[in-house]
Amino acid sequence: MTIQNDLFLRAARGEQTERPPVWLMRQAGRILPQYRAIRSKLSGFVELVTTPDLAAEVTIQPVDELGVDAAIIFSDILVIPEAMGLPYELIEKKGPLFPTTIKSGADVSKLISGEDAAAHLPYVYDAVSLTKKALDGRVPLIGFAGAPWTLLSYMVEGSGSKTFSKAKKFLYTEEAIAHQLLQKITDTTIAYLKNKIKAGADLVQVFDSWAGILSPTQYQVFALPYIRQICEAIDEVPVTVFAKGAWFAMDEIGKLPCQVVGIDWNTNLADVRKKIPGDKVLQGNLDPCQLYASSEKVRQATLDMIGNFNGKHIANLGHGVYPDTPLDNVKVFVNTIKDFRYSTA
Amino acid sequence: MTIQNDLFLRAARGEQTERPPVWLMRQAGRILPQYRAIRSKLSGFVELVTTPDLAAEVTIQPVDELGVDAAIIFSDILVIPEAMGLPYELIEKKGPLFPTTIKSGADVSKLISGEDAAAHLPYVYDAVSLTKKALDGRVPLIGFAGAPWTLLSYMVEGSGSKTFSKAKKFLYTEEAIAHQLLQKITDTTIAYLKNKIKAGADLVQVFDSWAGILSPTQYQVFALPYIRQICEAIDEVPVTVFAKGAWFAMDEIGKLPCQVVGIDWNTNLADVRKKIPGDKVLQGNLDPCQLYASSEKVRQATLDMIGNFNGKHIANLGHGVYPDTPLDNVKVFVNTIKDFRYSTA
Repeated sequence: MTIQNDLFLRAARGEQTERPPVWLMRQAGRILPQYRAIRSKLSGFVELVTTPDLAAEVTIQPVDELGVDAAIIFSDILVIPEAMGLPYELIEKKGPLFPTTIKSGADVSKLISGEDAAAHLPYVYDAVSLTKKALDGRVPLIGFAGAPWTLLSYMVEGSGSKTFSKAKKFLYTEEAIAHQLLQKITDTTIAYLKNKIKAGADLVQVFDSWAGILSPTQYQVFALPYIRQICEAIDEVPVTVFAKGAWFAMDEIGKLPCQVVGIDWNTNLADVRKKIPGDKVLQGNLDPCQLYASSEKVRQATLDMIGNFNGKHIANLGHGVYPDTPLDNVKVFVNTIKDFRYSTA
Repeated sequence: MTIQNDLFLRAARGEQTERPPVWLMRQAGRILPQYRAIRSKLSGFVELVTTPDLAAEVTIQPVDELGVDAAIIFSDILVIPEAMGLPYELIEKKGPLFPTTIKSGADVSKLISGEDAAAHLPYVYDAVSLTKKALDGRVPLIGFAGAPWTLLSYMVEGSGSKTFSKAKKFLYTEEAIAHQLLQKITDTTIAYLKNKIKAGADLVQVFDSWAGILSPTQYQVFALPYIRQICEAIDEVPVTVFAKGAWFAMDEIGKLPCQVVGIDWNTNLADVRKKIPGDKVLQGNLDPCQLYASSEKVRQATLDMIGNFNGKHIANLGHGVYPDTPLDNVKVFVNTIKDFRYSTA
């Protein structure tokens, strides 16, 4: 199917575009009244994730309401641990909770992985297919997965944490078991992303949400090699790597075989540009809190951001949009970018 | 009074030393059985902070038990908001909670500041005096304060937070009021630190614990100018600035009139060295989770750290020591540093 607005994909492939494409992490979510209306009728987030037609519906809502240049499939990074045999719950206002966590090599041995595990997630692939059909080529569809370290961190810690000290302790004390687990997660993630691509995803993004709590050495040992495996395995579509807080690893991230690198808002862009080769496209990075400001300030900050990146840029926030962000300001952000044109001088 | 072990102060002044001095952030705390014994008899953390002879006792415990090269007065950064008129509670396992928060210019106007506010903290100055007396010159005593942005973040947010989005929103929407509040905090902090120094503190450290959640622009506008005021006002003793996660501002931090810069564990030291002038001393930065590893790995990682800094270095962790850290490994960390000697070649 031909994609009518392919600006996002052209930019992701490194082509020169007339303006940066724009989408927002967490654009399908609580910022939209349409989303809240659906969500209020359901038992919880998990029902939304596991019901393909509902997941497809909320995936498309921001395309309709905001006019963004890409949709991202509504799902959750923790479906992978669940498919591997480690189920989780989402506790309202608290976040994910794993009733059982990984403590030993025996725990890791029990987990299934690769295509066997990925086969447990038909509802995701169905949601992708349904979304593609409903989008009818209007904009590209992004698939995503959590990076192996981030998934391990939840599987060992059992929940969110300020320090993830249990997960980090696991890396320091159970190095061999940690690598076994990371490999199983990686194999599953590759199979999962390939299934998503077969179902229609036009680009995949890997979220390393907890990159920033590892030391540079741990990140090189336990995180980057597995992200690299994923990048190397996915050759069907462009890959975006967003490693939040991994400014210390930008040199290595710049060498990954991915097309796009996500940049968070607390990043000195001049530093990043020195570390990431010019052929890579950068995605980001307005502070999500900037959208609390007046619309005029949002507009100016958005223009400043475009100017700072100055090409090879996919416009986004530097993190997921916060649920209480004024919708009008989200629209100012999107429309400022859509009204912009790079000078052709 | 002559300080017998003045290694820490010599290093902080930039002098060449025979080895790095060592202390640990949160060394006076739950890692020590002596601390837990005292703490278990009290109503709570606040009682310990506000009772000078107990605060002095736990301040000295790590000097006795670990043989560190400096003591740091046992206290809390949130005594400053309290002295300004905004009291807080510490909820067990949850952290600080401000029943009333700052929402408006009227709220800021009601706060007292400067010497008037600092005068409300005699128990801190008494604890410093008592500690100095009891230390009897064994090692120097560090005084500390929270950086103005970090204190504002609690005063506006009302508690800890993953995003501090309320506090950041305040900066974006109430810029003038934010500056008024930051100035009042700064004036109070300067008076407070000067009182601590008069009572005997040999160096003061400013903790900007939430530096890393601001954008580079916000950090320059709302954080650095106030830290600079503090550094400029304190000329009696050396000043350490530890801005956690502010890797994006290392150029500017390197230009502050302070003697020591704290470095967190997720820092690429080679990058930092390019940004911080060579006359500044660096403090840090072992990953606190490294102390969960085997004693042999702790020893090796500690030696690696010393080698990476290679002089102009005060050894420490990159963050406060975690309460469940094995005490034996803390001792391996300390003793590895104490047994080390820089080569004189």
